[in-house]
Amino acid sequence: MPKRASRTSDAAPINIGFLGFGTVGAGAFQTLCDNLPSITLKVGRPLAVKSVAVRNWNQPRYANAPLCTAQRAKDAWAVVEDPEIDIVVECMGGVEPAAELVLQALRNHKNVVTANKELIARRGREILEEADKQGVDIQFEAAVAGGIPIIRALKESLAGNRIQRMIGIVNGTTNYILTQMTERGCEFTTALAEAQAKGYAEKDPTADVEGHDAAYKLSILASIAFESRVDVEQVHREGIAGLTLADIEYARQLGYVVKLLAIGEETPAGLLLRVHPTYLHHSHPLTSVSGAFNAIWVQGSSVGKVMFYGQGAGSLPTGSAVVGDIIDIARNIRHKATGRLPCTCFSNKTILDVNETVTKFYLRMEVADRPGVLGRIATILGNEGVSVASVLQSNASGEEAEIVWVTHEVQEVKLRRALEQVQALDAVKCIRTCLRVED
Amino acid sequence: MPKRASRTSDAAPINIGFLGFGTVGAGAFQTLCDNLPSITLKVGRPLAVKSVAVRNWNQPRYANAPLCTAQRAKDAWAVVEDPEIDIVVECMGGVEPAAELVLQALRNHKNVVTANKELIARRGREILEEADKQGVDIQFEAAVAGGIPIIRALKESLAGNRIQRMIGIVNGTTNYILTQMTERGCEFTTALAEAQAKGYAEKDPTADVEGHDAAYKLSILASIAFESRVDVEQVHREGIAGLTLADIEYARQLGYVVKLLAIGEETPAGLLLRVHPTYLHHSHPLTSVSGAFNAIWVQGSSVGKVMFYGQGAGSLPTGSAVVGDIIDIARNIRHKATGRLPCTCFSNKTILDVNETVTKFYLRMEVADRPGVLGRIATILGNEGVSVASVLQSNASGEEAEIVWVTHEVQEVKLRRALEQVQALDAVKCIRTCLRVED
Repeated sequence: MPKRASRTSDAAPINIGFLGFGTVGAGAFQTLCDNLPSITLKVGRPLAVKSVAVRNWNQPRYANAPLCTAQRAKDAWAVVEDPEIDIVVECMGGVEPAAELVLQALRNHKNVVTANKELIARRGREILEEADKQGVDIQFEAAVAGGIPIIRALKESLAGNRIQRMIGIVNGTTNYILTQMTERGCEFTTALAEAQAKGYAEKDPTADVEGHDAAYKLSILASIAFESRVDVEQVHREGIAGLTLADIEYARQLGYVVKLLAIGEETPAGLLLRVHPTYLHHSHPLTSVSGAFNAIWVQGSSVGKVMFYGQGAGSLPTGSAVVGDIIDIARNIRHKATGRLPCTCFSNKTILDVNETVTKFYLRMEVADRPGVLGRIATILGNEGVSVASVLQSNASGEEAEIVWVTHEVQEVKLRRALEQVQALDAVKCIRTCLRVED
Repeated sequence: MPKRASRTSDAAPINIGFLGFGTVGAGAFQTLCDNLPSITLKVGRPLAVKSVAVRNWNQPRYANAPLCTAQRAKDAWAVVEDPEIDIVVECMGGVEPAAELVLQALRNHKNVVTANKELIARRGREILEEADKQGVDIQFEAAVAGGIPIIRALKESLAGNRIQRMIGIVNGTTNYILTQMTERGCEFTTALAEAQAKGYAEKDPTADVEGHDAAYKLSILASIAFESRVDVEQVHREGIAGLTLADIEYARQLGYVVKLLAIGEETPAGLLLRVHPTYLHHSHPLTSVSGAFNAIWVQGSSVGKVMFYGQGAGSLPTGSAVVGDIIDIARNIRHKATGRLPCTCFSNKTILDVNETVTKFYLRMEVADRPGVLGRIATILGNEGVSVASVLQSNASGEEAEIVWVTHEVQEVKLRRALEQVQALDAVKCIRTCLRVED
């Protein structure tokens, strides 16, 4: 790679290359261009988008792309190999070829900003190690919770804390669906169809609805918060597709709101990491996060409880996070301090099985409506150490009844053992729902 | 000042000196000591508290101060003049002698962290200019909203945005008092006495109750958000001492919650900056911020709406912010990049008189209970361009009646003109309350 001494004076622009120009890329580009004079003052050197690469410039959506003075790059590799580019902004999405491009950019001693949660969750270790090796910056604020500055808060502002617990609403699609179910009484399928019509959900909604997206984000947040690498496969994951209006309605009656939560906590035995629909007590600040909004609630050893709230997706909010990263890196370039914030996964903490979780549970089961059933179930629960906080029997049709239980705190493995025995009872038709409860 | 080349190797500790060891100082010290191994890894160099200065070590509260290896400095000047100190942490409070000490520390090429809102609000210009001149860091996250990382968010994460509007609950004392009035129906004096008993309010509560504290914080936040220096005297300020339960109760009836808000906004004509009790619509996320908690709601050109929530005071939360700043500066020292985040007050924006504000108003007035009064007041309002959204007449005793108005948006100067004429009416006994309304 040629030396670029002449390009490091304070008058020379810091050159940026974009890989991808979809929702996120265009939002970042617009944010950058709209505020360039102020950003230049903040950095102390001019910034310029030198080139933009997309898969196919002939697609109609690029016809009017406002590229200003940026060049249309031949392809993504041309950006990554361009010796004049200082910062590569990866907004293509997907793991490949993004990973190869980002790694090559780092090897070429370029700094990288990415909005790609899947990339960081799946290949973060390798990518962060390469950045550290080269002494350059890799930043990915936009990969989690759109415009909400949670990653920088964890890495810098809260860096003096031991993070004890973190609860996030980090997937706008499922939060929109659950909000519709709660506020308007739609069934899941109706709310999903509406989310798809409004562009909040993909045609194939699996990644959102089954909690994959939230698990990516939790693995990224947890790696930073707990200073120990968390692979996405280590996150216990349950989606929201099985929820019915009955569960939403019981939540209301019992003083809870159903939310898909991403929860990370450190216990003396290790880390517990899980994504699942949850009965969240109505007094918790996260219950007021509705629609497509995101929020992350953090408990730190000194700071106590803090919460960050905002738009978790969208072109400009995500663009705001990308540009925040660009400015941070540009300031490092200006002060010859790239690599200033290396990877902080210093530890190798044990990650516990979800069965180790100690929490309250909400259980809904259908049983035969005859005497003694409630008693037999309660006995099994008691024998396994599951203490009942409240119980509600209803919908007695003469043949079938529905029993809803909320337990006190219990280790999950004990509850699972009890439920196996309950399920085996003749009088129990099925255990419809089993959700964890957060107060 | 002697050269300290030998002290810049990665093995040599970065030395910290504390000025003051009260609530904030002790919280910062404890946070730092509790997490030192992790902090050392994050910075890439060890950190050590070399010395601590307090006014009088003989006070009983210092008898058991856990100073570890830190020395008890002769006085604050000894810390500021010590060539081995790299970072001075000012937690003494008050403007003098803090300002002289901080300025001398900066002249001695030391970096400074301060938790002192009054210092930054009153002497910020001079202090930030001196830091820029010396190429060192001055950081003050703890000066606003305790542990909530709002300053770093505005300076870094949201740096790509033009900030349009900012609404803060930044004074825990008044928020505690208003929460008690709202939730338990206490009168102001009762709630204040309780806040004093719990240590949330000072013996002399003027600084909190009259909005001075919130005005300091707004002047700091606005200077950063709007990139233009705001002096605290330029913030319009009204306190909460005049509020009665009647105002709280009407708020509830009309769908509002009364909060002391610090509001900064940029209009095409200039900046509007004001601290006052406000009727805030119950759907606004800030209404759920109760007790001594703080929150800041920000609207940016790209990020849209974001909110930051947490503990606005207290030893450890404030200590968390101080240590976040220490870590940031230590990373800059490690990478020879101090001065990386200089003052960003590039502009000199016009600051508008509060009379230019365009907002809705809540008005409560006592009038003679006779025919035609309502009509005459309504006519005056209408003639001055004040359009009425709702009106409520009650408490008719036969002699006196109470009229409560909520207006549509109107320029404040027009409302003031109308109120002068209303006040002059024989039938109007007094205008009890006039509050601005936020939706």
